[in-house]
Amino acid sequence: MTTRTLIDLASACGASLEGDATRAIRGPASLRDARSDEISFCAHPRFRPELERTQAAAVLVPRDMVVERKDLALLRCDNSSRAFTTIVRLFAPPRAKAAPGVHPSAVIDPTAELGAEVSIGALCHVGPLARIGARSVLRAQVEIGEGCQLGEDCEVFPGVVLYEGVRLGSRCVVHAGCVIGSDGHGFEPRPEGWVKIPQCGTVSIEDDVEIGANSAIDRARFGVTRIGRGTKIDNLVHIGHNVVIGPDSMIVAQVGISGSTRLGRGVVVGGQAGLSGHLELGDGVRVGGGAAVVDSWPAGTEVWGFPARPFKEAVRAMAHAARAEQLTKRVRELEQRLKKLEETR
Amino acid sequence: MTTRTLIDLASACGASLEGDATRAIRGPASLRDARSDEISFCAHPRFRPELERTQAAAVLVPRDMVVERKDLALLRCDNSSRAFTTIVRLFAPPRAKAAPGVHPSAVIDPTAELGAEVSIGALCHVGPLARIGARSVLRAQVEIGEGCQLGEDCEVFPGVVLYEGVRLGSRCVVHAGCVIGSDGHGFEPRPEGWVKIPQCGTVSIEDDVEIGANSAIDRARFGVTRIGRGTKIDNLVHIGHNVVIGPDSMIVAQVGISGSTRLGRGVVVGGQAGLSGHLELGDGVRVGGGAAVVDSWPAGTEVWGFPARPFKEAVRAMAHAARAEQLTKRVRELEQRLKKLEETR
Amino acid sequence: MTTRTLIDLASACGASLEGDATRAIRGPASLRDARSDEISFCAHPRFRPELERTQAAAVLVPRDMVVERKDLALLRCDNSSRAFTTIVRLFAPPRAKAAPGVHPSAVIDPTAELGAEVSIGALCHVGPLARIGARSVLRAQVEIGEGCQLGEDCEVFPGVVLYEGVRLGSRCVVHAGCVIGSDGHGFEPRPEGWVKIPQCGTVSIEDDVEIGANSAIDRARFGVTRIGRGTKIDNLVHIGHNVVIGPDSMIVAQVGISGSTRLGRGVVVGGQAGLSGHLELGDGVRVGGGAAVVDSWPAGTEVWGFPARPFKEAVRAMAHAARAEQLTKRVRELEQRLKKLEETR
Repeated sequence: MTTRTLIDLASACGASLEGDATRAIRGPASLRDARSDEISFCAHPRFRPELERTQAAAVLVPRDMVVERKDLALLRCDNSSRAFTTIVRLFAPPRAKAAPGVHPSAVIDPTAELGAEVSIGALCHVGPLARIGARSVLRAQVEIGEGCQLGEDCEVFPGVVLYEGVRLGSRCVVHAGCVIGSDGHGFEPRPEGWVKIPQCGTVSIEDDVEIGANSAIDRARFGVTRIGRGTKIDNLVHIGHNVVIGPDSMIVAQVGISGSTRLGRGVVVGGQAGLSGHLELGDGVRVGGGAAVVDSWPAGTEVWGFPARPFKEAVRAMAHAARAEQLTKRVRELEQRLKKLEETR
Repeated sequence: MTTRTLIDLASACGASLEGDATRAIRGPASLRDARSDEISFCAHPRFRPELERTQAAAVLVPRDMVVERKDLALLRCDNSSRAFTTIVRLFAPPRAKAAPGVHPSAVIDPTAELGAEVSIGALCHVGPLARIGARSVLRAQVEIGEGCQLGEDCEVFPGVVLYEGVRLGSRCVVHAGCVIGSDGHGFEPRPEGWVKIPQCGTVSIEDDVEIGANSAIDRARFGVTRIGRGTKIDNLVHIGHNVVIGPDSMIVAQVGISGSTRLGRGVVVGGQAGLSGHLELGDGVRVGGGAAVVDSWPAGTEVWGFPARPFKEAVRAMAHAARAEQLTKRVRELEQRLKKLEETR
Repeated sequence: MTTRTLIDLASACGASLEGDATRAIRGPASLRDARSDEISFCAHPRFRPELERTQAAAVLVPRDMVVERKDLALLRCDNSSRAFTTIVRLFAPPRAKAAPGVHPSAVIDPTAELGAEVSIGALCHVGPLARIGARSVLRAQVEIGEGCQLGEDCEVFPGVVLYEGVRLGSRCVVHAGCVIGSDGHGFEPRPEGWVKIPQCGTVSIEDDVEIGANSAIDRARFGVTRIGRGTKIDNLVHIGHNVVIGPDSMIVAQVGISGSTRLGRGVVVGGQAGLSGHLELGDGVRVGGGAAVVDSWPAGTEVWGFPARPFKEAVRAMAHAARAEQLTKRVRELEQRLKKLEETR
């Protein structure tokens, strides 16, 4: 592994250096794990205890942070997390871009259309009438169903399955094992058992969406399940039929969103939260991790709990519920004192 | 896209039409999304606000529903949701049936048996001694392990993996990315660490079962993990070893059912609910979404909460717990008034 | 199916037999399901009701268990669960070992290195510079990314995807559909929307780890996401970037662990529990199923609940919260009695 000097790193990320300019650094690491030839960052005062103990040679810190230790080289910068990303990239080059071309083991239907410089990896299957936009990459073992449309510069990782007719915008990233366009879970109870309600709609993923590994997004019963531009979805997320998510939202791992629920712009849903069907969450709503959302909430609300309600209310209610035992004792004591009082009256 | 007249749509679904018989309709949509050349439906009075505002040309409604608006064409019918499905199908033909035959890129063990008119898509692998029933479809990139048996008219979507010896009945639908027959999570603590308990059983999926995308159903430690006839399972569901689910049950997305738990007939488990191991849920039990079920429940019980208990009790307890803060205030006030009384006595 | 005599079974597992030595047994079954020519086991007195009703011919029991029934043959042994495993294996041979060699449909980059007696199944893809250790098995349709390193005697099931640079130790088992090394969910909010933070680290899975179906383990932002030696992970588990799990831990199905959280040695996390990011759980911490862990906990703590706190405290608080309704009644009664007292004073 090649090394770089502190002054080179500082200049690469626009930091002002306090320390030995020629010191050689082997790579980036967390404050906790860093060794004496590594560089780390401290973006927030709450990580100060780790800063006190780190063995790193140098640390990126905000311009105004007071640091007691004299043995640490400091790289002062405007946004130490972002600057650290620049440094990480210097040491660890990004994933190699796939070479354009179609691997001989891939199976491409003759009616599919491939844009310029598309890369299709080993053992992929592209169905009839599918269209893959310029420079998009199917890594390996990807399934693109009949009539799917991918925009330009998409990257689709191994094992992803797009059912027929799914549309992806440009610059979308779909991680391994995702399923997009599977049938929505629609069944009608009849005397003879559950009867399937046909799921005749599709899924539209807008530009710049990223979807994590093994997530599943169902096609609409009719119309479209839609993921808005720039929205980022984590691993193992379930999105039911006819859900609509606005642009720039963030759906953390293992969240489940039931059918026909609509999220506005910039909604953030914490890990493992569950949303019932047919709800509306306005722009900028924030749902805490693990919350069970059973009501609609207007723009800007922050909710948590089981069932979810406004965040501060939820936290206070949890705290009080946790003290129910003491409260019960106080009530018992009141009962005894009152009884005494009633008897002696 | 082709259009259809209202009278054609009404006659297709057995509705009586109130409105312009010749009006041309472009397709189906929800009340909320419909434009002026689309048709929608209103199955329940609670959607009346959306009915008041819809821009749809026509709406399917129950025969006895009172509708104030005079500008809407109405198609009155016995079951407006079901009738709407008929109309959806008229506009959006179902997924194309796969053509019989074996794709040249598929790998079929010479000892596997393929029934009449079976369709095996690109890059599938069928292991030794597997048997695929007549007219069953493996879409693409499906893995069928050694000795698996599929009944007739099954549809298996891309990326599905059946481990060795798994049995599927007839007319089963398995969505993309499902894993059936993986080892149950059985390990024994010993001084040297966790030691694997061999998982020597199998999985049996009965007729007419549908399983959603990326779900995982483990093989039994011994004997059989069984999914009963007509049961419908949603996306990202975990079913542990030796679980038995009765017929006509419904398991919603992201539910987890731990080892050896048994569900009766017609059990409904809401999204993200978790069931501990070795429980029994009787026929018709209903578990609310997100519930943590740690006890067995007799037939017909409805449960919810963390931990789950009878539904009404859970809702009341949640409501009271949410008011713990006010209760604490009332107790504090009681203490002050009582103190005063004690002092002045 | 072949049968075995009771005396053969008893001697195979070191049990002392009370009953007919020549009785023919067809196979193992649970107490509840066993028929009159099958053998079962009863490892704990709490299964005694099932022991009373079983139709099994014979039952493995602890050496000192008192059994009233005289019609049951008993095999007394030191550890009846472990002995039963021996018997299960006699009847159900383990999964057939894959034959060494590379299937002609597999795509192996010429720069990949395959160890002695490696088995690579149909339609697998092994990328450039990957190294597969001796006797390791890729079952079918497995994707091994560029530069991955697998130790010896690993078993990787169909549909598994290893992103570039992932390392597996020896004797690891990775079940179908797992994704290892996908990008961590790191995005920075900027005025123009979420901007991806490059995920430049990797994943290291140590020796003897087993991972269940459809789980997802993200690569580190920098450095390594690490799963310690001998840790066992169940199905549909999410492990975020830079998580570190110590050796001999147990992560049950559908657990989610957010970025940078660290678990010690021998930690047990129950099904569907969720752990926030940047936490520390010490050695031997036990997290109950469904718990929402938002704090760090020292070695040996047992926690449960939403949010999680020490187990006994959580159980007591839940019990008291469940009685909030009665408490409210008692407070109302106190208020009335106090009012009366105040008036009559």
